[in-house]
Amino acid sequence: MYDFTKKIKVYSPASVANVVCGFDTFGFAVHDIYDELVMRLIPKREIIITNKDNYNLPTEPEKNVLGVALLALLEEVKGDIGFEIESNKLIKPGSGIGSSAASAGGVIVGANYLLGKPFTQKQLIEFAMAGEALASGSKHADNIAPCICGGFTIVRTHDPLDVISIDAPPMFVTIVHPQIEVKTSDARNMLPTEIPFKKAIQQWGNIAAMVAGLMKGDYELISRSMQDVLVEPIRQKLIPGYAEFQKIGHEEQAIGGGISGSGPSMFMLSKEVETAKRIEQRAIELYSSLGLPFHTFVTTLNKEGVRVEEM
Amino acid sequence: MYDFTKKIKVYSPASVANVVCGFDTFGFAVHDIYDELVMRLIPKREIIITNKDNYNLPTEPEKNVLGVALLALLEEVKGDIGFEIESNKLIKPGSGIGSSAASAGGVIVGANYLLGKPFTQKQLIEFAMAGEALASGSKHADNIAPCICGGFTIVRTHDPLDVISIDAPPMFVTIVHPQIEVKTSDARNMLPTEIPFKKAIQQWGNIAAMVAGLMKGDYELISRSMQDVLVEPIRQKLIPGYAEFQKIGHEEQAIGGGISGSGPSMFMLSKEVETAKRIEQRAIELYSSLGLPFHTFVTTLNKEGVRVEEM
Repeated sequence: MYDFTKKIKVYSPASVANVVCGFDTFGFAVHDIYDELVMRLIPKREIIITNKDNYNLPTEPEKNVLGVALLALLEEVKGDIGFEIESNKLIKPGSGIGSSAASAGGVIVGANYLLGKPFTQKQLIEFAMAGEALASGSKHADNIAPCICGGFTIVRTHDPLDVISIDAPPMFVTIVHPQIEVKTSDARNMLPTEIPFKKAIQQWGNIAAMVAGLMKGDYELISRSMQDVLVEPIRQKLIPGYAEFQKIGHEEQAIGGGISGSGPSMFMLSKEVETAKRIEQRAIELYSSLGLPFHTFVTTLNKEGVRVEEM
Repeated sequence: MYDFTKKIKVYSPASVANVVCGFDTFGFAVHDIYDELVMRLIPKREIIITNKDNYNLPTEPEKNVLGVALLALLEEVKGDIGFEIESNKLIKPGSGIGSSAASAGGVIVGANYLLGKPFTQKQLIEFAMAGEALASGSKHADNIAPCICGGFTIVRTHDPLDVISIDAPPMFVTIVHPQIEVKTSDARNMLPTEIPFKKAIQQWGNIAAMVAGLMKGDYELISRSMQDVLVEPIRQKLIPGYAEFQKIGHEEQAIGGGISGSGPSMFMLSKEVETAKRIEQRAIELYSSLGLPFHTFVTTLNKEGVRVEEM
């Protein structure tokens, strides 16, 4: 029934959640930044994880994002079946570009492939959410959904899970990762439990218009809609260089950008690759002058999501 | 320069604002319920209003929605020029389906037509907003925008005004107008100034998904997104029969519906005309049994907005 000789390589992309106005709702996947997993089925109920990177993540399944996601999936699979996984994380944990979501989403799409694709996309997202919860402390799909589905996604609700994929026009993405630690739980705890009704209306005017802008391919409208009156005004304090990076985006006439997820990475969308590269260059100068270690990337939206190759 | 012999007839549609999840943001215009205006230019700086209906609205320009809107427009027009208007309001004032917006929007589109269309759509909306503010006490565009633009509109922001028209699939609209008085200012004052962040996120998940559903023509998604966790739970107390009308919609498998604007009218969207008519029939039975005077309508989305005919 199962092919235990089949070995696959899984490429699982980084992703940007929130996307300025869509807190806990919007996300998109990117190219060029991804985790690699090598996976095969084994004929025993076991999960064997080997790390091929230097992050020293725990290999006990219950303490590892990959393992917890697979344990959730295995609850729905009968018989003597398990997984052997070699994990090569190229997305740095804690970078704010969906590193744990890439682990969880990648391993689940890989497992589904090896099992003959018995699960729906919604189930895959739910299994992966269980895994990511280990790292982030709460169940969220705003990185998992774009990682698995590709492209630009809306998480309408988490309970019940309802994920909508929408079209987006071609855009270039500049990402800068200042290497400081921002704990997702801290970034979440600093937000108020009550907010002014008027600001919520501003926010949903922007989120509605942003969906329209993306689906119409109207860059001007996307740009006008990329405003966050609730979250980034509070969280920007966590990220050195936030204001300067926004100023660079503005001066280079980027479409817009802000904090990726709960940070510390920031992103900026551009219509032209030259703009995206100029923004990267200026971000390099900025963070060099701030004396912080950092990484930068210029990439594009990834419409495919997790990709599986047979080896 | 101007043709003082030209006479036009203006048909200005009713509209539904908020549309459940899009408080102060969404709106759509409908067919079959409209105000009629007959207008012509006059060679003196004067606004002459005659009422052809029985609502006894004031005819002094400063006290009349038509007049205030035209006064705002005339600030941008030089010379000895004014308007003569016969107003036949078929949309009952205070019904919650954009009666004052229809007056303001209709007279402004008519005036622009007579003047040779010198103004942009955005300017027209702004002039009309000045007029509607007289009736509602605050400047809002969520009825004006669909009335003037037609179809389904998003008001991203009021300041600066940013209105986006989006596509919507064919839908039938059942409207029931229980003839009680709901003052817009009362309906507004009962809303809290602060709201739970979590509920705001639910709301903007729905509003984002609703835009996607409308633009994709995905009736199921539109239906799932038509939830309001913030406004209708509070305002429904104002409207006798609210819960029963929602139950009818649910039982008849309508797409969804709720309060139109700040009420007292309610609306229900359906995919099939038969569904819309069954809902109307059951609403008639409901309000007959409640012993309230009421009107009902079954109509469709109006993609054209205000229509002008030369006489």
